[in-house]
Amino acid sequence: MSIQSEVRLMKKDAPFMAASSLEKRNNALRKIKENLIANAEEIFEANKKDMEAAEENKIAPSVMKRLKFDQGKLDDVCAGIDQLVSLPDPLGKITLARTLDDGLNLYRVTCPIGIIGVIFEARPDALVQISTLCIKSGNCAVLKGGKETAETNRTLFNIIHESIVEAGLPERALLQAQQHSEIDELLLCHDCVDLLIPRGSNAFVQYIMNNTKIPVMGHADGLCHIYVDSEADFEKAIPVIIDAKTQYTAACNAVETLLINRNIAKEFLPMAAKALSDAGVKLFATEEAAEIIRENGTEVKSVDEQDFKEYLDMAISIKLVGNVDEAIDHINRYGSHHTDSIITENNEAGKKFMNMVDSAGVYWNCSTRFADGFRYGFGAEVGISTGKIHARGPVGLEGLVTYKYKLFGKGHIVGDYASGKKHFKFKDI
Amino acid sequence: MSIQSEVRLMKKDAPFMAASSLEKRNNALRKIKENLIANAEEIFEANKKDMEAAEENKIAPSVMKRLKFDQGKLDDVCAGIDQLVSLPDPLGKITLARTLDDGLNLYRVTCPIGIIGVIFEARPDALVQISTLCIKSGNCAVLKGGKETAETNRTLFNIIHESIVEAGLPERALLQAQQHSEIDELLLCHDCVDLLIPRGSNAFVQYIMNNTKIPVMGHADGLCHIYVDSEADFEKAIPVIIDAKTQYTAACNAVETLLINRNIAKEFLPMAAKALSDAGVKLFATEEAAEIIRENGTEVKSVDEQDFKEYLDMAISIKLVGNVDEAIDHINRYGSHHTDSIITENNEAGKKFMNMVDSAGVYWNCSTRFADGFRYGFGAEVGISTGKIHARGPVGLEGLVTYKYKLFGKGHIVGDYASGKKHFKFKDI
Repeated sequence: MSIQSEVRLMKKDAPFMAASSLEKRNNALRKIKENLIANAEEIFEANKKDMEAAEENKIAPSVMKRLKFDQGKLDDVCAGIDQLVSLPDPLGKITLARTLDDGLNLYRVTCPIGIIGVIFEARPDALVQISTLCIKSGNCAVLKGGKETAETNRTLFNIIHESIVEAGLPERALLQAQQHSEIDELLLCHDCVDLLIPRGSNAFVQYIMNNTKIPVMGHADGLCHIYVDSEADFEKAIPVIIDAKTQYTAACNAVETLLINRNIAKEFLPMAAKALSDAGVKLFATEEAAEIIRENGTEVKSVDEQDFKEYLDMAISIKLVGNVDEAIDHINRYGSHHTDSIITENNEAGKKFMNMVDSAGVYWNCSTRFADGFRYGFGAEVGISTGKIHARGPVGLEGLVTYKYKLFGKGHIVGDYASGKKHFKFKDI
Repeated sequence: MSIQSEVRLMKKDAPFMAASSLEKRNNALRKIKENLIANAEEIFEANKKDMEAAEENKIAPSVMKRLKFDQGKLDDVCAGIDQLVSLPDPLGKITLARTLDDGLNLYRVTCPIGIIGVIFEARPDALVQISTLCIKSGNCAVLKGGKETAETNRTLFNIIHESIVEAGLPERALLQAQQHSEIDELLLCHDCVDLLIPRGSNAFVQYIMNNTKIPVMGHADGLCHIYVDSEADFEKAIPVIIDAKTQYTAACNAVETLLINRNIAKEFLPMAAKALSDAGVKLFATEEAAEIIRENGTEVKSVDEQDFKEYLDMAISIKLVGNVDEAIDHINRYGSHHTDSIITENNEAGKKFMNMVDSAGVYWNCSTRFADGFRYGFGAEVGISTGKIHARGPVGLEGLVTYKYKLFGKGHIVGDYASGKKHFKFKDI
């Protein structure tokens, strides 16, 4: 059966997921955890096959690390499931209750989005994490993992699928797509898939975004900035820059561009450049900044600001700006609207930056690396969204629900209000 | 200058709109009202030209009514502006406040979406309504009206634009596109336009949705259902059906399909068919339903359920179903996820319908025609959304804002938490 036909069938089961009790959904999560632990050996065995194939195909060591699913990863996903079970029900929350007139009551109530398509490269733990988030939020999910972990994914999916059926949830609530060609098929399902969540490289997410009419939640790039203002406290600035750049360079929230106020450049830039260089970071700077760095004996390569990019590596771009307005302008123009930070002790500059930088996260005197669902205290996260429609920033369960308006009447008709026979009372209850 | 270049310049002004005070935005709204009233004659004169041209071009009378901008319409938009001024600021609302650790505080704060593209056919009052909603919510807007009201739109836009500049808002916060070709140009601006709101016919909205990568808020069709359950109170059912079908047939929330429980069909259907026919409604029904209707002497045309459609006219489709589950299935399969109603005194059937019908509005014992921002007590409305991402149902100011995360630190770095030197405290404040 084609993915489209399967998803159409899933659509028939989606209302049953939407109406399922919290108890049933939590039971399914508990069963998944039990069955993952009970079948740990089978999972590790499958993962071993994937790892061997990856080695044969000379996959880069950094990617190999992501493919691995060992006892540590199993412990992590099980801890995640425990936490998810403990969270309150995201469904059925009443966010507006209003009497429109006697006997005519309106409620806005949270409900699942419906059918979520999840497409991810590598990382089999993402399959467990995202499918359990979908179950908790009453959504149906189509899962497509990368071919590098095909064996692990198949094993994990079968365990998860069996568990939800055991718990009494609809059989078609979860579906695994196994063929690569099915990604393109899935991208065409805008009549029945409500949301796509891609997790992977920039190029991969960009491809998804460019080739579907289905709304996509996520981010292709993370080109984050730190602006060091003329009134920055250098003792805060240097450690924040080093942390944001070097603590985990492959993360989307690592800093990629450093903007420095011209007034402090002669004093601050040599210090920052040396600290970065000592930490093993390669420097790229506009000519003006490069000159100052070179004068002080640190190695730097001159580049134009148009060539500043997301390195995801031990490298950073540097440019001087005249004031906070120029910094804001640069960030809004070249940034990816992910997370940007200002280092300053000046209240006015700080406030301006926080209000006018158009990013999901705007930070004051701290590292961009804090942009993360766990560090925000959200628990499990679906991903980080740089879109401004629906969810923004780190997205947890809240991003997987929508709402519907429920109106309860006693035979009420609009004609009575149009004719003036009756009048609306509008009273929140 | 091309629309793309103009919108790129607008993007530079967007942060100033985002940071503008409520006072300034409300002042702009007050000035718009003043200037519309002061220049009423000029507006009516422009509208007269449009009306004359429309007459020459033999525009249908129903459309002519929408083109008209007279004293009544002016009074309406002015009343709308007064109401908008009285609403609280949708910006700067703190929806989450959390201490992550000593001196490290996270806030989720509402902010404008950024740049909204508004494309509408006919109805010059929509230009005033939507541009004032965008101003109140701190958004920049690109407005493109229909060519039938080009003169009226130009006059209205100039008054509104002068007013916001007088009030001290950025000059480029509003932009009017006047050439038809600029619609297609605008659809390509996904790098700088954040949201499109189309208002017009199904075909028009569908065209917009099919030809842009920018998120679109709205609805193409409104194929609403009423399901009359076996335990319906007929004295509620008949007036609700007549109201939902005939009170205003051109509305997206008018009922288009009637589903009737087979158990009551012999008794109820002849009554309903006669009432509809007496009200001037043409009946289309599946063969099974058509036979019952014909036996009782009411005229009806047989059609297949695949041919049920949105009539936007005095016509309705009728089908029999075995139970509430079949009704839900039909609605989720053929409906447009706009608004659907059940007529029943049975609690179980009612609850099932409310939970399992996947529509923006699910109604119990009342007319689908209540689906409207004004009738929900929202005041001004941008439109009704049948999408499930972002806003759903009637959308007011809330649908024009997003949020950003603001994080305030004192030099905090992630490395300290990764190394275990510090621990998150997560405390809501």
